[in-house]
Amino acid sequence: MRVKILGSAAGGGFPQWNCACSNCRRIRHGSFRGKPRTQSQIALTGNGARWCLLNASPDLRFQILSCPELQPKTGVRESPIAAVVLTSADVDHVAGLLHLREFQPLRIYSTDSVARVLTEDNSIFRALQQVPEQASWQRIRPGESFKLEPDGAAAAAIHCEPFALPGALPAYAGSDRRNKSAAGEAVLGLSLSTLAGKQLIYMPSVAGVDDSLLARLDACDVLLFDGTFWSDDELVRIRGSGRTANDMGHMPISGPKGSLARLAPLKRPRRIFIHVNNTNPILDEESPERREVVAAGWEVAEDGWEVAL
Amino acid sequence: MRVKILGSAAGGGFPQWNCACSNCRRIRHGSFRGKPRTQSQIALTGNGARWCLLNASPDLRFQILSCPELQPKTGVRESPIAAVVLTSADVDHVAGLLHLREFQPLRIYSTDSVARVLTEDNSIFRALQQVPEQASWQRIRPGESFKLEPDGAAAAAIHCEPFALPGALPAYAGSDRRNKSAAGEAVLGLSLSTLAGKQLIYMPSVAGVDDSLLARLDACDVLLFDGTFWSDDELVRIRGSGRTANDMGHMPISGPKGSLARLAPLKRPRRIFIHVNNTNPILDEESPERREVVAAGWEVAEDGWEVAL
Repeated sequence: MRVKILGSAAGGGFPQWNCACSNCRRIRHGSFRGKPRTQSQIALTGNGARWCLLNASPDLRFQILSCPELQPKTGVRESPIAAVVLTSADVDHVAGLLHLREFQPLRIYSTDSVARVLTEDNSIFRALQQVPEQASWQRIRPGESFKLEPDGAAAAAIHCEPFALPGALPAYAGSDRRNKSAAGEAVLGLSLSTLAGKQLIYMPSVAGVDDSLLARLDACDVLLFDGTFWSDDELVRIRGSGRTANDMGHMPISGPKGSLARLAPLKRPRRIFIHVNNTNPILDEESPERREVVAAGWEVAEDGWEVAL
Repeated sequence: MRVKILGSAAGGGFPQWNCACSNCRRIRHGSFRGKPRTQSQIALTGNGARWCLLNASPDLRFQILSCPELQPKTGVRESPIAAVVLTSADVDHVAGLLHLREFQPLRIYSTDSVARVLTEDNSIFRALQQVPEQASWQRIRPGESFKLEPDGAAAAAIHCEPFALPGALPAYAGSDRRNKSAAGEAVLGLSLSTLAGKQLIYMPSVAGVDDSLLARLDACDVLLFDGTFWSDDELVRIRGSGRTANDMGHMPISGPKGSLARLAPLKRPRRIFIHVNNTNPILDEESPERREVVAAGWEVAEDGWEVAL
């Protein structure tokens, strides 16, 4: 399994269009020690020919432009992108589906609750269903494993097991839809396994980690984990108001209840923070916060990284 | 008035993610004489401080990154982008609104018919209305001029006059919404005028030009006109099926009923093709088609151009 990290930032990317926090201001002025990042996007493949996306970022058009493997190989209208698995209905995880219009066949895996938001409450996604054989929405359920490409060669098979994470549908979905959402269907983590037993876990939005989840994480080989915020009040301090990291469904990295402390017992996986917000000091390669996560054995994902399992 | 052409391609951009037509294949391989282009996007300002966007392209995040004038100048969360005027509900004209989330005040001008598609049929655009003072939807009507920034300094004022063009709401809106759309509200052209009487006309989607429209066009200084397709059957030939340019609401450039012939009588305006599809041979600077439009006095817009009026 080849895994490409095409984007590693949280919603808005880095820099963010309307942000002049210390990180955004310095990277615009060329005085920042660190890299710009597009919004979180993963692409993976079992055979190098057919690729599956994890979520569809608003930056997807440029992420495809940056990745020759995802560009047409044969025919006049064609794409190696066969499928997308959605972990939520968040704007930064679904808006990129609109980049994938243009009458191209595409398998979209999501829970029923997420699919209803997109297909019943948002006519714009019908742009993916203008011709037969275009978007094919596939329902997935937490705890039920499925093959990413049921028709693909067995040797190339990747199995995906979605698992429920705490959290609700995004605010835009409205209270009625949020109330009707089935338990465990709003926010998923994904476990991707090869036939040889190698395992990647992708969790860009994590509100909390209980003991059984901790055990699951320690059984994987590579963990891509929610690195949105360093501190719980990070955005409140910058915006002057608003919600905390915990309010937004993200456990912060630091603090006694943060991911650094909570995941410290992990022994097996390579641990990589992803979905890093533009305000997060770990983006600054010279910051004490960056040194702290590196000292704890974590990496900070960058656009363009590739991981092989 | 300063006018920035941030994007000059039609929907999908150039190259397009799933296209390997002669243009797309050659530009990916570095053997194309011509430039890549993002999806059509205009930004304009009367005073250099506050900017208005014409439509909101799916590439808007990168277009803002490419344009220092549109980046925050003061404060921690701030943007010089004050408003957006929508000419239709087409995906390539509205999807970029989702890039403008993040609790930033924004005035969005559109017809009632277009606003209803976005605000009543698409919950995802509520991401722009999570806090009071965020998106403010302003209704505009064909033939009724309005000031782009009613609170701005009079000396910086730009007046915008929307005018009706033939055409329907996009297919994704559904037949019920399309049938209910008020006459003349689905597709607009925009005339932008300075107090000194200089005038820009922006028309990225034009199904046809009658004599009164021709007279209007000959009264402006700069015309940014629909250059989507060279020939009526361009996409049918490449995809092997589908709709003609005319079916899609775009008059082609060539042919006896094309824009080159129809607009040949124009004397006054500087004429620029914009919203150019990835399949259009005028993108190739060495093509006979490009030579033909240049010989007829037309320019082909490129990303990054600036026009002053």
